[in-house]
Amino acid sequence: MKCGMGPEVRDLEEVSINLDPIQAGGRLTADAMKAVIAYGDGYSVCDHCVRPNRLDYIKKPGIEQFHKDLAGFIGMDQVRVVPGARRGFQAVARTYICKGDPVLVTSLSHYTEFLAIEESGGIPFEVQAGEDRIVSADAVAETIEEVIRREGRNPQLFFLDHVDYQFGNFHPVRDLIKVAHTYDIPVLYNGAYTVGIIPVNGRDIGADFVVGSGHKSMAAPAPSGVLGTTSERSDEVFRTTKVRGDRTGRTFGIKEVEMMGCTLMGVTLIGMMASFPHVKERVRHWDRELSNAEMILGSLLSIEGTEVLSEYPRRHTLTRVDTTKSFDVVAKKHKKKGFFFTSSLKEKGITGIIQGATRVWKYNPYGITREQAQYVALSFREIAQENGLNTI
Amino acid sequence: MKCGMGPEVRDLEEVSINLDPIQAGGRLTADAMKAVIAYGDGYSVCDHCVRPNRLDYIKKPGIEQFHKDLAGFIGMDQVRVVPGARRGFQAVARTYICKGDPVLVTSLSHYTEFLAIEESGGIPFEVQAGEDRIVSADAVAETIEEVIRREGRNPQLFFLDHVDYQFGNFHPVRDLIKVAHTYDIPVLYNGAYTVGIIPVNGRDIGADFVVGSGHKSMAAPAPSGVLGTTSERSDEVFRTTKVRGDRTGRTFGIKEVEMMGCTLMGVTLIGMMASFPHVKERVRHWDRELSNAEMILGSLLSIEGTEVLSEYPRRHTLTRVDTTKSFDVVAKKHKKKGFFFTSSLKEKGITGIIQGATRVWKYNPYGITREQAQYVALSFREIAQENGLNTI
Repeated sequence: MKCGMGPEVRDLEEVSINLDPIQAGGRLTADAMKAVIAYGDGYSVCDHCVRPNRLDYIKKPGIEQFHKDLAGFIGMDQVRVVPGARRGFQAVARTYICKGDPVLVTSLSHYTEFLAIEESGGIPFEVQAGEDRIVSADAVAETIEEVIRREGRNPQLFFLDHVDYQFGNFHPVRDLIKVAHTYDIPVLYNGAYTVGIIPVNGRDIGADFVVGSGHKSMAAPAPSGVLGTTSERSDEVFRTTKVRGDRTGRTFGIKEVEMMGCTLMGVTLIGMMASFPHVKERVRHWDRELSNAEMILGSLLSIEGTEVLSEYPRRHTLTRVDTTKSFDVVAKKHKKKGFFFTSSLKEKGITGIIQGATRVWKYNPYGITREQAQYVALSFREIAQENGLNTI
Repeated sequence: MKCGMGPEVRDLEEVSINLDPIQAGGRLTADAMKAVIAYGDGYSVCDHCVRPNRLDYIKKPGIEQFHKDLAGFIGMDQVRVVPGARRGFQAVARTYICKGDPVLVTSLSHYTEFLAIEESGGIPFEVQAGEDRIVSADAVAETIEEVIRREGRNPQLFFLDHVDYQFGNFHPVRDLIKVAHTYDIPVLYNGAYTVGIIPVNGRDIGADFVVGSGHKSMAAPAPSGVLGTTSERSDEVFRTTKVRGDRTGRTFGIKEVEMMGCTLMGVTLIGMMASFPHVKERVRHWDRELSNAEMILGSLLSIEGTEVLSEYPRRHTLTRVDTTKSFDVVAKKHKKKGFFFTSSLKEKGITGIIQGATRVWKYNPYGITREQAQYVALSFREIAQENGLNTI
């Protein structure tokens, strides 16, 4: 079935259990779906825009209040919505990084942080995670010292992922930020896998900036995200325009330079707003999600030869496993080769794992029900047993 | 009625004729509405993303083909989708403008062009439109010469709106671009009010870059837009990442720096794709839209004292009028003051004109039916007559 003359209808979420590592926290709530229908038109939220004519001042619908609530939710003084977490990275990078400036990231940093640095002309320096795949305070201090020795000055900014996208590991952000702050390095806390999933309080953590992703973890349409900061930094990253038309004398009010004026209109913003009450509630039930994740990983680890590459026991649902000594052994002899695994899962109505993967792969059972988690756990074991792998 | 626990439902388009100047061309088609429901989740278009893992290479849904079709539609060699026209401006500005560089705009340029220049550290110089509120080739040449005299070098870029947002006037872009090119100045054609509304061929016009707005003129959700360029310029503005992790040796494939990697996922892109067949069709029927606009303006001009500030006869539906000597005369004595006018319109089910405006205001009847246009034309005259204004 097609959407009129448009693309084929997508029914993946309706007909299967989706374990896609990046899709789990972004699935829309029913309220967001309703809001998206009601506010489909781009400028739909601008019906009642009055002076000073900026998105975050609009009272009907309650965009102004939403900004305040969202600031409270992430424990920062000021927030703006942005077209994706990466545009939050870019705004901060463009504010603090000049050509040739050293910038700190980690060996597990997301590629969009590298791009934000590259786009600003900065030079990234990675803090190497330990053998446990966790970034330590000592490693941060050592890397800063090394940058100072080599570049003759401090890194200008530190991009720090609370939970990294590679292993779903938690890094001790509070300690790492403390180290950075002793060198007066501002820290951007990347909460793409935390904001909207677990409670996050930027002030408690000590972050100068908190970035979250609407479509990754806040049940909002793409591209959407949030950039929050402290009252100390807000005049820098949210600085207002100073430019002036030389002939007309025009100025442009309180539009913000790094936001490029107003940011999220229509479906993206309204979807985020509609999901927000549910998101605020769901972060309080992280234990349920972890419990589901634990059951599924337990099942996988009961298949002889399977290893978990993420920290263990798990503290996040996003998990990376190595099945080179289990499912990949089967793949070598199977007529479908590596595709036997995802193909078997698909037959059982489970999707979201990269097609053909039988060695190292990621999954994320966030947001599925207990019954679905039980079914997934059982299914992994069944596929193993059907293919002659030992289970304990 | 609320969207669940979310915002109030918006039913403006269902219950009224909306003449909002910025909303007219962005209203979703029914197919876009369907697509938005089917692809609400942010990463919904990424189900079948395979190497080289970039949005514009995805074959299912047909995003790769859409990029080719869209390039053909605007007559450019390469296109990318971007989160709003302003993010297209920013990408081009960041590629060509360094700190202190002079950049050409016009006295009618949109504020987001100024912000893109400011964000890049450039200095805008306005080409003054003539008394007819049209930018002339002579004025472009004179301003370039003046910039050269004052700054000792050429402007590095020229932001040129084909149809300006202030008057909805058409500017002779082909001639203006020719002048800029004699000075080797690349030109960004801003088609926020043309791409998706009238046929646009960037190659014919001579543009180096064409930017269009999804939510302003392509019946797509916000934030969305298109940035197209020539094969000569595409390696510059769409340059791929060169950054490398110093510890891990990581590189990031063919992700594009100014695009910040992948750009539009989910509703925004799929909505634009679903509307695209309709948009391709509708640009062929501009005459109908102009005919409606002509009728409405004729009615307004039949009210004694009303003047049109936009070029006349109209070549675009976006129109600015001055009713200081008609409706504003009434407002001075009316118990509702300036609000009598929009309030009377609202009673007749007509909306989108800035509340309380009775002097200079804009409207855009794009996309309404002939019958609705007749009704709007009649309504303006009725309000005039009910309030004792002479009509001819």
